[in-house]
Amino acid sequence: MVVTDPDVLAGYRQDRASDPAAGVALALVRPTTTEQVATVLQWAHRHRVPVVPRGAGTGLSGGATAQHGALLLGTERMREITVDPVTRTAVVQPGLLNAEVKRAVAERGLWYPPDPSSFEICSIGGNAATNAGGLCCVKYGVTTDYVLGMEVVLADGTVARLGGPRLKDAAGLSLTKLFVGSEGTLGIITELTLRLLPAQPPQSTVVATFSTLPTATAAILAITGALRPSMLEFMDGVAINAVEDELRMGLDRDAAGLLVARSDAPGEHAGYEADLMLDACERAGATEAFRTDDPDEGEAFCAARRYAIPAVERKGPLLLEDVGVPLPRLGDLVTGIAAIADRRRVLVSVIAHAGDGNTHPLIVHDPNDPDETARAHQAFGEIMDLAIGLGGTITGEHGVGRLKKAWLPDQVGPEVMDLTRRIKDALDPNGILNPGAVL
Amino acid sequence: MVVTDPDVLAGYRQDRASDPAAGVALALVRPTTTEQVATVLQWAHRHRVPVVPRGAGTGLSGGATAQHGALLLGTERMREITVDPVTRTAVVQPGLLNAEVKRAVAERGLWYPPDPSSFEICSIGGNAATNAGGLCCVKYGVTTDYVLGMEVVLADGTVARLGGPRLKDAAGLSLTKLFVGSEGTLGIITELTLRLLPAQPPQSTVVATFSTLPTATAAILAITGALRPSMLEFMDGVAINAVEDELRMGLDRDAAGLLVARSDAPGEHAGYEADLMLDACERAGATEAFRTDDPDEGEAFCAARRYAIPAVERKGPLLLEDVGVPLPRLGDLVTGIAAIADRRRVLVSVIAHAGDGNTHPLIVHDPNDPDETARAHQAFGEIMDLAIGLGGTITGEHGVGRLKKAWLPDQVGPEVMDLTRRIKDALDPNGILNPGAVL
Ligand SMILES: Cc1cc2nc3c(=O)[nH]c(=O)nc-3n(C[C@H](O)[C@H](O)[C@H](O)COP(=O)(O)OP(=O)(O)OC[C@H]3O[C@@H](n4cnc5c(N)ncnc54)[C@H](O)[C@@H]3O)c2cc1C
Ligand SMILES: Cc1cc2nc3c(=O)[nH]c(=O)nc-3n(C[C@H](O)[C@H](O)[C@H](O)COP(=O)(O)OP(=O)(O)OC[C@H]3O[C@@H](n4cnc5c(N)ncnc54)[C@H](O)[C@@H]3O)c2cc1C
Repeated sequence: MVVTDPDVLAGYRQDRASDPAAGVALALVRPTTTEQVATVLQWAHRHRVPVVPRGAGTGLSGGATAQHGALLLGTERMREITVDPVTRTAVVQPGLLNAEVKRAVAERGLWYPPDPSSFEICSIGGNAATNAGGLCCVKYGVTTDYVLGMEVVLADGTVARLGGPRLKDAAGLSLTKLFVGSEGTLGIITELTLRLLPAQPPQSTVVATFSTLPTATAAILAITGALRPSMLEFMDGVAINAVEDELRMGLDRDAAGLLVARSDAPGEHAGYEADLMLDACERAGATEAFRTDDPDEGEAFCAARRYAIPAVERKGPLLLEDVGVPLPRLGDLVTGIAAIADRRRVLVSVIAHAGDGNTHPLIVHDPNDPDETARAHQAFGEIMDLAIGLGGTITGEHGVGRLKKAWLPDQVGPEVMDLTRRIKDALDPNGILNPGAVL
Repeated sequence: MVVTDPDVLAGYRQDRASDPAAGVALALVRPTTTEQVATVLQWAHRHRVPVVPRGAGTGLSGGATAQHGALLLGTERMREITVDPVTRTAVVQPGLLNAEVKRAVAERGLWYPPDPSSFEICSIGGNAATNAGGLCCVKYGVTTDYVLGMEVVLADGTVARLGGPRLKDAAGLSLTKLFVGSEGTLGIITELTLRLLPAQPPQSTVVATFSTLPTATAAILAITGALRPSMLEFMDGVAINAVEDELRMGLDRDAAGLLVARSDAPGEHAGYEADLMLDACERAGATEAFRTDDPDEGEAFCAARRYAIPAVERKGPLLLEDVGVPLPRLGDLVTGIAAIADRRRVLVSVIAHAGDGNTHPLIVHDPNDPDETARAHQAFGEIMDLAIGLGGTITGEHGVGRLKKAWLPDQVGPEVMDLTRRIKDALDPNGILNPGAVL
């Protein structure tokens, strides 16, 4: 269960944020049961050893970055799942991948909606710890909306069961919801009770390209003003070209922006809603727009959008943002980002879960060029400042982790920081749980 | 702003739980602004005076019951609302009634889903403080699913803004969700940012009567197994007769149970889903079942169901339960309740938000008969024990308040009680916020 081999540890030093400040962990433990997690935490509590929880390490905010002298607690061997079709719930251990959960419940005709683009490589425990979003959350909500209960191991090794397989439960404080999104700072999630839905109906897909960013954002507002799409994704010209370089699917390389919008309304209503969206795109000035009801073709465009991050990453290491704004400010955000990119002379590609105002500006930089790296980091901060100024958030779904914590006080203010600190101190008085993350 | 007139105070002594142990408050304050609430709390903090927050006083668990020497803080004069159709959000002060919020947003073509049966008489602040449920939450979720942000005044008078008008926000701990359902024990909610949906499509309604309880619960399971109704409500024979006594709408007085089920699927899919539900009822053995697409007729049956509590109350004061179980145990719960009623020789009528396993056993008793009152209280506790034994909850939506707190530890266990206590102490170290509620 305990690994100290430096070669193995090296592979667990960073998450996908590739924080260069990552430390060297004392050891990696990979428990299989809650009891083992409790034993580890009891030991860590006794010896005041910090513990960094780690799911699949796909996090983009440095939340699972190894720390000097800390124990890395990896959940990858906690892989059990039970599906109950009658209550439409699943009880899962944290180490299963999101895609594995989706597949296991689909075998029973059910659907676990949350679908981060990383769904094939991220763990369900990591999803709960970060309150992961995804593509369908514009209609179906985020991870917290599907977590009915959990088992957590607290800082001193105590095991607590929060919530349970009840669709409604008002007994006591909403502790389940507090632990979702707590990024490993309040406890280790060792089991989740997830709410499931009946299988999603077939989707109708609209793809539209725009020659300017304002026409694209106008289309987004027109769509969300008229109905609730089951997906509404955006990528800019840089991302379109990066994806086209890799996938060669005939995307319009001259476009300034591409929208992928879907409807899963029942029966022919999917097509009806898709036509409304098609119409909204055309009226906003799309250069090209079409609808497809073919599931494979629709999925190909979604896959292209999901592939945008890795594709842009081929141009160079990324500083990956996750800023969100109230939807009417989306245009201001996108324009403001372009101005920052210009000023700091860095390439910034913007992709977005457009329907909920959550964008991922991808700042490309060459880590061997110290000047460019410095400018990239300046842009990184300025984009968060911009989002805060527009009434937005520094993180819509990736979490604060270590990379964004310097900006958290600016967004939430001193009162909320104080509340957060008081809760953290009450639940983890020695500060051994994921120290340096969030706070 | 400050009222000390004993006659006025008398009217604010109890909520709808009519707790005979209610105390006499020092005074009632009815602020209109957040600043006034902050001033009150600063004063209370300095003088260690307990504060009991109160919305409209429709609570059913004694959460707003006056306490000796405490200040009652009523929100009824905090009545502002702004609706933003573009972001589909509303910013509301806590004192507005749920129905007033619904009406204000409906004028802009929008919908605020949460619909407790008490929607015409309960406050939106009380809804957030109790995480209120309702009839549509079987498909649309409960209050917490619609609260994007809030302003709260903390125990020492500090004002904190949590969350905001962003559909997704992963910046820091999920404090908004922690405060929803905290029953006035962590802070006073002075403003809410609510998520809205497009107007609900017209509903198709199915009404079915059953001659036995097992056939009714079988129909419930068949329906929820096949689709997600927009409403699935139950009332038993006692409730049917009590409602019929008052409303004379021709309900079948011989029935053991009546279901009201609705679908709001788009277009003719509502009728299609309604037919599936009709079929499920008939196959489960309904004595009579019909579908109506007439909105007024459909609404009349929903109103009848909502009227069940006041109607049964005419037979005598109620001890009102709110127990919930995982859906497959609904039959066991209903049978078990009947056995308890028999053993304790009290009349118990069961109504339920059946689709999410949340029942309201109504225990009728004559408060002038001390023996019957004692038996009613025994039954009250035994029904909660039964629910806990079936893996359920002592409260699906009304909250713990003062009446159910003795049972909370049995449901959640010592670890969760300890966690709750630690959070309460961290946020309200002097224990002045709604003392005696929940903990
Ligand atoms: C290409 C790509 C696309 C992505 N797209 C999305 C997207 O669309 N939406 C989105 O939300 N995210 C996205 N992400 C980010 C990432 O996949 C999510 O944040 C995911 O939820 C992290 O899961 P993980 O298992 O990899 O967690 P890790 O990276 O291992 O950990 C993430 C955080 O959770 C904590 N943690 C992990 N497991 C536990 C546990 N059991 N108990 C307590 N704390 C724990 C860690 O300490 C850390 O703070 C993307 C990432 C990549 C690389
Ligand atoms: C006939 C009837 C039917 C009902 N049906 C339902 C139903 O279907 N679903 C349901 O969930 N409930 C139902 N209820 C219960 C009740 O209406 C809800 O609990 C409602 O949310 C209480 O709102 P209120 O404004 O009356 O709050 P109150 O009774 O005044 O207070 C309730 C609790 O919230 C706290 N509180 C109130 N306002 C604030 C604030 N601004 N800040 C902090 N704390 C505050 C109080 O201290 C108390 O603990 C019903 C009640 C009746 C009488």
